[in-house]
Amino acid sequence: MDINKDARTELGEVGEFGLIERLGKNFGLKNPSSVKGIGDDAAVIDAGDKYLLLSTDFLVEGIHFDLSYVPLKHLGYKAVSVNVSDIAAMNGIPQQITVSLAISNRFSVEALEELYEGIRLACDDYQVDLVGGDTTSSLSGLVISVSVVGAAEKDKVVYRNTAKEGDVVCVTGDLGAAYLGLQILEREKQVFMANPEMQPKMEGKEYLIQRQLRPQARMDIIHILREVGLVPTSMMDISDGLASELFHICTQSNVGVTIYEDKLPKDEEVSQTAYEFKIDTTTCMLNGGEDYELLFTVSQEEFEKIKKEPDILPVGVIRAKEEGMTLYSKGGKIHDLQAQGWVHFKDNQ
Amino acid sequence: MDINKDARTELGEVGEFGLIERLGKNFGLKNPSSVKGIGDDAAVIDAGDKYLLLSTDFLVEGIHFDLSYVPLKHLGYKAVSVNVSDIAAMNGIPQQITVSLAISNRFSVEALEELYEGIRLACDDYQVDLVGGDTTSSLSGLVISVSVVGAAEKDKVVYRNTAKEGDVVCVTGDLGAAYLGLQILEREKQVFMANPEMQPKMEGKEYLIQRQLRPQARMDIIHILREVGLVPTSMMDISDGLASELFHICTQSNVGVTIYEDKLPKDEEVSQTAYEFKIDTTTCMLNGGEDYELLFTVSQEEFEKIKKEPDILPVGVIRAKEEGMTLYSKGGKIHDLQAQGWVHFKDNQ
Repeated sequence: MDINKDARTELGEVGEFGLIERLGKNFGLKNPSSVKGIGDDAAVIDAGDKYLLLSTDFLVEGIHFDLSYVPLKHLGYKAVSVNVSDIAAMNGIPQQITVSLAISNRFSVEALEELYEGIRLACDDYQVDLVGGDTTSSLSGLVISVSVVGAAEKDKVVYRNTAKEGDVVCVTGDLGAAYLGLQILEREKQVFMANPEMQPKMEGKEYLIQRQLRPQARMDIIHILREVGLVPTSMMDISDGLASELFHICTQSNVGVTIYEDKLPKDEEVSQTAYEFKIDTTTCMLNGGEDYELLFTVSQEEFEKIKKEPDILPVGVIRAKEEGMTLYSKGGKIHDLQAQGWVHFKDNQ
Repeated sequence: MDINKDARTELGEVGEFGLIERLGKNFGLKNPSSVKGIGDDAAVIDAGDKYLLLSTDFLVEGIHFDLSYVPLKHLGYKAVSVNVSDIAAMNGIPQQITVSLAISNRFSVEALEELYEGIRLACDDYQVDLVGGDTTSSLSGLVISVSVVGAAEKDKVVYRNTAKEGDVVCVTGDLGAAYLGLQILEREKQVFMANPEMQPKMEGKEYLIQRQLRPQARMDIIHILREVGLVPTSMMDISDGLASELFHICTQSNVGVTIYEDKLPKDEEVSQTAYEFKIDTTTCMLNGGEDYELLFTVSQEEFEKIKKEPDILPVGVIRAKEEGMTLYSKGGKIHDLQAQGWVHFKDNQ
């Protein structure tokens, strides 16, 4: 079949989000149980008493991971974390996952058992059950597809498109570490390839590397929000970088935002390593992806309930749409926020 | 990382079912909402009033489809059908799907729109909603992962492990056509590769080719079962071939079975084409996969409710385990049933 016939638009021209929008545009929702379709961290399904949440993520060898430095056990753990994080992002509790693998004959059964050991550890940590999947050959490499089902009371599900002007913008944990962890792993791979005798220099970088290899979904924050009785006005997980996620929330909620540079949650190891790599620390925190922290908005009154939580930090405020998306720098200057995020298709061209 | 270290068991040594069993063995079910995990056509999740069903399937280029003769629109339709079929196999109604793609840059946006047109047609036919997915690059080829959510009243879900001695074994539609459709497409591909001037010989084979390229999930049968008020004692869909599926039902239900060769649902085009390819027609019907018909068992009394349905045929009877799995041939001889099915890992070695 000629897949090149007639007009040809390259994938790189439309980008990942443009592609999803274009492919999904002729699909309406027919079932009354389909509460929310494409466009949030998870789909929302009316199951009677409560809502079920459904999300799915691909991890593709050579695109999302490099087995020359990613241990299979960590990869298994991460595959579950990134999916659980999507359920957290909806303010839900994860329950079940399915794991599908396409595998080349390069992998032994023992290697897959390593991968599943990581999946099992994550299932224990997040209290989710592995309930199914599919296992098949691939002609090259490893592809992992995980789907996750979560649940939430109907009045607790939090979307991206409901941030309100005046809301406090909160971020959990710290940002930029996973991105710098990747830079270190890539650097050491290059060093090793040039000279296999060289010992990798990873001392003092353990936190960054762990953030890249074995991220944690912030279910602890979801439980804190329940304990203090707070339902955010909007929420997402930070997988593609804070600026990119703010772009989604602002666009879908029809609002603007101001982020204060001096409020961004900076880890000391991140600052030092950014300096070492000659990258601006703020850029790492704004545009480095894969931290799987949570970004959410709450009203000023509701913020009182969490202002003493050490792992939740206010970093900005939701503005009117006309005020745009801006960064208020340490020097008192106002910059436009650039929502670049990861553009997988460009990486691969 | 050395994925070859220590003991190495090749994937081909354990096979697909052995692999799933081995990888899943350390996973228990922790959540009370996890009613049924690995081991049936779909997982079963307690959603309060009813059960939700969850299943997922991979379609991998070069393993499951060959784009030199599979039109992308048909491929999209088939990707939905095979998943909906898993929900039908549990006696459920499909509601939502997610579609994830890993795509190389060889594909244009227009090619993916063709694929999604097929997905959209299937969503219309099966009344399911596309509610999410993930889109990413691959280094080579196209990988499609579809997950499906269905629903069923709690007393209507049908498993594989509940067939009873004396039950009538029923099959829907006819068998073997999709397998022969694949043989024809492969033959014409070889002819074309040897001589691109040759016209493909597909006249009179339209039914077989359609069964291979665009299979239908038998939701019509599920609706008939509801109308006549019949809940089968056990059910599966026939994706890997009748003999292989009977093996699953008998093993899991701890029973045996006798299939009557003269009762197998034979299509005239299947007989003629099997003859042409010098393959035994019965072998096609027993071991040819991908028909996506339903296999189910009902008690003799309940069978009365469906005995006049033209598309449901009794083909055998469930026996005690000690009697094994046998085929009663037209000549009156008794043969052991061989459960070969598709062994993807062997195909790829």
